[in-house]
Amino acid sequence: MKQKPEIRSVTTIAKGQLLAIEGVELQFPNGKSATFERIATAGPAVMVVPITDEGLLMVHEYAVGTDRYELGFVKGRIDFGESPEAAALRELKEEVGLGANELTYVREMHGVPHYSDFRMHLFFARDFYPEKLQGDEIEPLAQSNWRFDEIDDLLYHHQINDPRVLLALCLVKKWLKD
Amino acid sequence: MKQKPEIRSVTTIAKGQLLAIEGVELQFPNGKSATFERIATAGPAVMVVPITDEGLLMVHEYAVGTDRYELGFVKGRIDFGESPEAAALRELKEEVGLGANELTYVREMHGVPHYSDFRMHLFFARDFYPEKLQGDEIEPLAQSNWRFDEIDDLLYHHQINDPRVLLALCLVKKWLKD
Repeated sequence: MKQKPEIRSVTTIAKGQLLAIEGVELQFPNGKSATFERIATAGPAVMVVPITDEGLLMVHEYAVGTDRYELGFVKGRIDFGESPEAAALRELKEEVGLGANELTYVREMHGVPHYSDFRMHLFFARDFYPEKLQGDEIEPLAQSNWRFDEIDDLLYHHQINDPRVLLALCLVKKWLKD
Repeated sequence: MKQKPEIRSVTTIAKGQLLAIEGVELQFPNGKSATFERIATAGPAVMVVPITDEGLLMVHEYAVGTDRYELGFVKGRIDFGESPEAAALRELKEEVGLGANELTYVREMHGVPHYSDFRMHLFFARDFYPEKLQGDEIEPLAQSNWRFDEIDDLLYHHQINDPRVLLALCLVKKWLKD
């Protein structure tokens, strides 16, 4: 394993309500030093892929980064003191009105490791029953169903730009094959 | 197509050297309003997957967001006035000392659409010749070669946390199959 740069200091350069920019002063093993910027966030999130007998349930949510509706999966922040599993089950109830009897942890996914510690836990959910919880969504999320044989096309769908959603699709495909 | 929220104003809340936080005041079609935060960045980047006869060439680069070395592909920002193709060919020469006779555009990839306009253009490169250009890397990037039959394992490699790298691996796999 290669020796890591040493972090000499981390300074909050600028702060919003939700996001903050940090300056990280680094000393590299080769003697060079540099200050890198990164985004500090409010803790991890979850993404949940609801898998039915026929295919996948997706949601349409407005994304402010790209200013358009993105086709994606149920997701949300983990509340303080909440487990990732509990957050996944809660978000399913809030965003699509479903409880799940089966929840499988898949992997951790980062956003942009070179710029931020953004990360989320990916789950697959199956075996559903109706249960609606009120969430903090500013508008109800439209839903759409996709067949398993449409996953290859979804990898090039113009409304799917979040690489974590695309990765989740790849991993569902692999899981179906195995 | 669903009606989008209207952007009433965009304000720079906080600014670093490289990154800035914007507050976006939104009016939703249902009458509700809210201010969402997003990260403004310095323009698009490129990612290039070098495909040899035997497999894939990857690089090891320190990521400040996660404070560890990430296994990934050649990447970098597009210089002012430069085309994505020129940036891809330049980054290959700078990061791994290779020119490429064949460059294929694959797709655009975003970082985190709900928080930022981070985006990069993904290319596959083939048919190489040695040519080194000096880049702005603070340390030379270690390289490693991976066989095509190792791609499935790479999807769960602990040093690959950038979902765009994982997506690129999925798309290489699909491209090899087709």
